[in-house]
Amino acid sequence: MGKNMLIGQSGGPTAAINATLSGVILEGIRHSEIDGIFGAINGIQGILNKRIIELQSQIKTDEQFKMLECTPAMALGSCRYKLPAFDENPDLYEDILNTFHEYGIGFFFYIGGNDSMDTVRKLSDFFQSKGEDIKCIGVPKTIDNDLYNTDHTPGYGSAAKFIATTMTEIARDCRVYPVKSVTIVEIMGRNAGWLTASSAIAKTLGFTAPHLIYLPEVTFDLDKFLADVKEMQQKHRTVIVAVSEGIKFANGKYVSETESTGQVDAFGHKYLAGAGKYLERFIASKLGCKVRSIELNILQRCAAHMLSATDIAEARRIGQFAVRYALAGQTGVMVAVKRVSDVPYIADIVTVPLEQVANVEKKFPLEWITPDQRGIEERFFRYVLPLISGEVIYPTENGIPKYFDFEKTFLGI
Amino acid sequence: MGKNMLIGQSGGPTAAINATLSGVILEGIRHSEIDGIFGAINGIQGILNKRIIELQSQIKTDEQFKMLECTPAMALGSCRYKLPAFDENPDLYEDILNTFHEYGIGFFFYIGGNDSMDTVRKLSDFFQSKGEDIKCIGVPKTIDNDLYNTDHTPGYGSAAKFIATTMTEIARDCRVYPVKSVTIVEIMGRNAGWLTASSAIAKTLGFTAPHLIYLPEVTFDLDKFLADVKEMQQKHRTVIVAVSEGIKFANGKYVSETESTGQVDAFGHKYLAGAGKYLERFIASKLGCKVRSIELNILQRCAAHMLSATDIAEARRIGQFAVRYALAGQTGVMVAVKRVSDVPYIADIVTVPLEQVANVEKKFPLEWITPDQRGIEERFFRYVLPLISGEVIYPTENGIPKYFDFEKTFLGI
Repeated sequence: MGKNMLIGQSGGPTAAINATLSGVILEGIRHSEIDGIFGAINGIQGILNKRIIELQSQIKTDEQFKMLECTPAMALGSCRYKLPAFDENPDLYEDILNTFHEYGIGFFFYIGGNDSMDTVRKLSDFFQSKGEDIKCIGVPKTIDNDLYNTDHTPGYGSAAKFIATTMTEIARDCRVYPVKSVTIVEIMGRNAGWLTASSAIAKTLGFTAPHLIYLPEVTFDLDKFLADVKEMQQKHRTVIVAVSEGIKFANGKYVSETESTGQVDAFGHKYLAGAGKYLERFIASKLGCKVRSIELNILQRCAAHMLSATDIAEARRIGQFAVRYALAGQTGVMVAVKRVSDVPYIADIVTVPLEQVANVEKKFPLEWITPDQRGIEERFFRYVLPLISGEVIYPTENGIPKYFDFEKTFLGI
Repeated sequence: MGKNMLIGQSGGPTAAINATLSGVILEGIRHSEIDGIFGAINGIQGILNKRIIELQSQIKTDEQFKMLECTPAMALGSCRYKLPAFDENPDLYEDILNTFHEYGIGFFFYIGGNDSMDTVRKLSDFFQSKGEDIKCIGVPKTIDNDLYNTDHTPGYGSAAKFIATTMTEIARDCRVYPVKSVTIVEIMGRNAGWLTASSAIAKTLGFTAPHLIYLPEVTFDLDKFLADVKEMQQKHRTVIVAVSEGIKFANGKYVSETESTGQVDAFGHKYLAGAGKYLERFIASKLGCKVRSIELNILQRCAAHMLSATDIAEARRIGQFAVRYALAGQTGVMVAVKRVSDVPYIADIVTVPLEQVANVEKKFPLEWITPDQRGIEERFFRYVLPLISGEVIYPTENGIPKYFDFEKTFLGI
């Protein structure tokens, strides 16, 4: 008889995160070394609260797995809980170990971003220091694509596909009227420009939009921005601008956190506009044309109606490989993608140490930003196009998507 | 030899408007009474400026028609130009007639909303008063679904499908964290609640979201809203609210136009928040939980990656019937949809007089709003479900949609 395995999901939602969960479960079922397949509700918090459910009996058919893979945002719930260092709260670690013993857990898979990898590292170190044979594997996900030591992260491809597609639609929409206009599209990415850069993909099909692109990797300057817009207006009636939510001024302040005295909302509270709204009003105050800002908002991370087939297949595969590497005896590692070739796209699924992943954010390469600092170099397209390739036909009912749900009946031990 | 036909597109973009254009062209090709097939660039403005192009030679293959039908926003450009009454500017009417003569136009099809139907009516009346044999047919489109005398309008089904789908995704996204939150989704519809009501479709698949729905047909009250949210928070950790951009207070003012003294933006200008942002800040000031607002923005009208197959097929069919009715001798009418049955969905394409269409907005029926004025009655689902039924697989290249473009070479006469 084998040991049980436990899966948790953590951090911000992605549209592909349940494809990884699907892969972990699918692979878990195949191996006799693994007995029960359990899920922690709301990540590490579910372990601390013993909110643990049984998964295997709930999902069996191909149709159910397909539905799960097309369900956006963590099917097991998520958390934003950062595990304290061992020294700060050793009892907490002992509690977790006791829970793992109670539930007979020999394998732990944590699907998440930087913070989740930090959690995996801490738990793995602790278990090893206690001589416990519990394999802990980090499984990456994040639309931000800012994890170190992996070519990219599952979830990024689908988000990039949504952003690129939406950009083509916005560009078509904005140009129907014979009037001058500026449209500012605000895209997610607090510190890394990967998502905003993906708005440029439309250019590979001959779109001139987005005409200006600003990433958080480059200091944002209002005067240069105004000059850029004016310059583009000479050539294009409708100017489309893509900005990252995380652009910062030279003083290090986020554009989105800029305020002026007296800027309060209708309820007397300090009001923080997003970067897009701020720039919309800036341009409106400087130029006499129609200005609009569009915040793509959380649709970027949850639009499961627009999945990249490559992303979903890879997210599943990464989940499967996580189980295989654990069974091969690895622990304290993250599963990662190592690209072998752009065209045809070939990638290996490998494992990498967690230290760097947990503490370093992978920024958009400066050499992939054009010298005028308002565009994206061709090289990026070779990188990103394979990741957004292919469409997924999702299950529907009544004309809308049909999602998978686990019954949240907690295991009594 | 036949006469030429001229097509124009006008008003706000929809994702289905080019399927109607496709239908008009397809049908025009089939009839020997029709010679050249021309398009006016930017609607009636293109007629006034003689920016007229030839269409038939540019689009021939099934693949091209399919691409055109999946291209969002007017392929011929649009305008927001309202034709003055004849008495105000008779010369303008004579100019238009001269242009029609120059280009040999015997059939005019104008695809648009209320204002466009007004234009068709004025031109048709004028041509008839002059004894001119020029058939003018209005062809409806609008995501707002607010046209009188037609069961619904092409474009609404796809927009409703996008909103309903997005609502399921937002609902899944918002509930992943084990914390209380309120999410306010602002949906288009200045005076009619059809689009906002479509957010309720998720309920047919067992979603509890959106928990509260506010349409412009019902006076909006802040105190009732706060009480509603508090009540829902007793039952649901994450409360999702759908509001129309056009909700108004009892004093007749749009919620989106509400201001308080000193509410200026960073550039010293009066700042108008949208209805969603306003309510977000209101709830944040009253309740201590996480609050977010999401504006679905122009994606509602241009998300051609999420077309309703029923909507597109019907949009095309309406275009085809417009040509047939013109050839049958009708003029000064609008093509309209007359529903025969909900299940199975059967609808006839008929013609209706333009007078009422041009001047009356069709509101969401009050009897389809629940008595507590914050929900939608079951009856609406029977109406809307056929309209969002079926998915369209759109042409892609590089993982993003591939659109159709007409060369804008103006005809020299």
